[in-house]
Amino acid sequence: MLETLSSTLLTVPVLPELCPTLSRELSQQINNKTKPRKSLGFLEALACQIGLIQNTHTPQLNKVIATVFAADHGIATAGVSAFPQAVTKQMIQNFLSGNAAINVLCRANHLDLQVVDCGVIGGRASSMRDESGNRGTSLTSSHIADGTASFVDGNAVSEEQLLSCWRNGASIAKQLLGNNYAAVAFGEMGIGNTSSAALLTHYLTGIALDHCIGRGTGLDGQALNHKKNLLIAIASNATITSIDQLLRRFGGFEIITMASTMLHYAAGRGVVIVDGFISTAAFLIANSLCPALKEFSIFSHCSAEQAHSRVIEHLHVHPLLKLDMRLGEASGAALAVPLLRSAVAILNEMATFSAAEVSEEIMANNLA
Amino acid sequence: MLETLSSTLLTVPVLPELCPTLSRELSQQINNKTKPRKSLGFLEALACQIGLIQNTHTPQLNKVIATVFAADHGIATAGVSAFPQAVTKQMIQNFLSGNAAINVLCRANHLDLQVVDCGVIGGRASSMRDESGNRGTSLTSSHIADGTASFVDGNAVSEEQLLSCWRNGASIAKQLLGNNYAAVAFGEMGIGNTSSAALLTHYLTGIALDHCIGRGTGLDGQALNHKKNLLIAIASNATITSIDQLLRRFGGFEIITMASTMLHYAAGRGVVIVDGFISTAAFLIANSLCPALKEFSIFSHCSAEQAHSRVIEHLHVHPLLKLDMRLGEASGAALAVPLLRSAVAILNEMATFSAAEVSEEIMANNLA
Repeated sequence: MLETLSSTLLTVPVLPELCPTLSRELSQQINNKTKPRKSLGFLEALACQIGLIQNTHTPQLNKVIATVFAADHGIATAGVSAFPQAVTKQMIQNFLSGNAAINVLCRANHLDLQVVDCGVIGGRASSMRDESGNRGTSLTSSHIADGTASFVDGNAVSEEQLLSCWRNGASIAKQLLGNNYAAVAFGEMGIGNTSSAALLTHYLTGIALDHCIGRGTGLDGQALNHKKNLLIAIASNATITSIDQLLRRFGGFEIITMASTMLHYAAGRGVVIVDGFISTAAFLIANSLCPALKEFSIFSHCSAEQAHSRVIEHLHVHPLLKLDMRLGEASGAALAVPLLRSAVAILNEMATFSAAEVSEEIMANNLA
Repeated sequence: MLETLSSTLLTVPVLPELCPTLSRELSQQINNKTKPRKSLGFLEALACQIGLIQNTHTPQLNKVIATVFAADHGIATAGVSAFPQAVTKQMIQNFLSGNAAINVLCRANHLDLQVVDCGVIGGRASSMRDESGNRGTSLTSSHIADGTASFVDGNAVSEEQLLSCWRNGASIAKQLLGNNYAAVAFGEMGIGNTSSAALLTHYLTGIALDHCIGRGTGLDGQALNHKKNLLIAIASNATITSIDQLLRRFGGFEIITMASTMLHYAAGRGVVIVDGFISTAAFLIANSLCPALKEFSIFSHCSAEQAHSRVIEHLHVHPLLKLDMRLGEASGAALAVPLLRSAVAILNEMATFSAAEVSEEIMANNLA
């Protein structure tokens, strides 16, 4: 288990320390609101967390974006997915035309959308265009190569590629912060990426590999068995003693780029909204390099991909939603954004007992 | 257990039958979207349910309102609440000034807000004014009396009052439908109303009364024991053989008015969004009179009030949120509205496989 190992290759940014005095003040601020104490449950903790991350009594989440990191995986040719590799690029095109699930969810919940090509097969070709016009969707090229190498017999990612992914993440985070995005919903698209994520999760949490492998986009019994047998055989032949080795061995481009973006974005006091199984694998990478990342991260939902609830349990976190979803694309994270905005609005807009002239008796009772 | 008993006093509206052909068509419509089948989980069932209720392939939730039914309870003078009775009116005033939790949540999640005085002590007095101006909050007077009678030794509600509550509910529903509200978040405010709700829930579900009694707005150990002992003693002396008797015995005005509004609103193809424990008690009343109401109802969240998870289990429904909230005021229902709107947007806006030119292979696979 590599949870606390460091890397010799990757530059890890320093996250700001969250202020304990502000933490107490934010709790007090919420306790003075006209409601029974703790009656808004997780919303209260959310409001405090976002205030702490932004280092203010009046946090805001005006500009929020879903960033979908996309890439292809060499392992997809080994029959581990219900879908052919060509679908990654087709789905990117679908995102850019504005009519995929994540486009709809971003519009419905008032997020912008950014698609990052981290290594989609054919991603450099002219056919992949941003057709979204004014729909608030943009395409960022951080293309490493046309997919990773298959990790059946060797490394998915070269040292140079690993470093490029990491630098790209830093650069994407810088842009997000520069554009004043207060929170980012971290999502992904990449046929085959539950295989990478399963292996990463296994090594980073110690959860049995068998339990880390799931149906992905919808494998049935026999194909799921093939995926399990193949990945378990691969792991039994792999020697992993460092994070660098782990990332080079199993990839993928989009997961590594996402992990780097999370860390560099949090370093600038951005709120990291983690999506499902793959997004959580990226979080695990980043968190193993810098455990303080957890304080900057909100777990949006618990995915139906079987391993995700185990990882959530391992991390001792409370996802906001559990809707039996297994889509990826930042879909769960986008759906959680109204809850975050509601929490922040409670902190900023709700009356206190004294301002509302609600019985002093209550206040005494409530604060007893 | 009175779950299936009818009433001799109350007029029960006929709910429209939901169309089984449309149900199949809506499922097909969702299955053709560019995503692995069922990958949007509960959101898919939600979209279908709302389409069925509105009897259309293109449902909409443009206008949604939180309706907060408020009243006082005679039982509150028997020490069953952490708060004095005066707080009901103070909180209504707080709602009308635009700065209570439900105001904030309505603004954050794009709902209008209506407060209904069903029998708040002093509610008729000139001091209770609608100060909300253009904040989208309105006050409706359906005032029966200054609180119910205490049900320690007798009935909380007279036959005439019961009938008035029921008529008021029909009238409120008619207004809501006339104002084109596509969905209503049903909430409440009333010091002492968890006591009424506990007894109603016990008789309507068969769940042991002890399990139906909880902390309400925040009772501590000794006071909670007093509440339990008192309510159990009252129930042991009560003879309840009909819904009419049950409602007259335990009230309250806001719960009965809410139950009637739910039924009459569903009869006009409105989407009923049930909030927490009290709102679910109103649902139980309405559902016992007309079991088809369940098809028109969405359970927004599971409250921290201990009995609520038991009732949810009893009803075999899946609440959308579980955020450890115990506030009432329609707060959980308001928070769930973006999920409903997202579900509807998926149905209306998301591309199909053929329109998006995503691999036929996928489609074959996906629809296999």
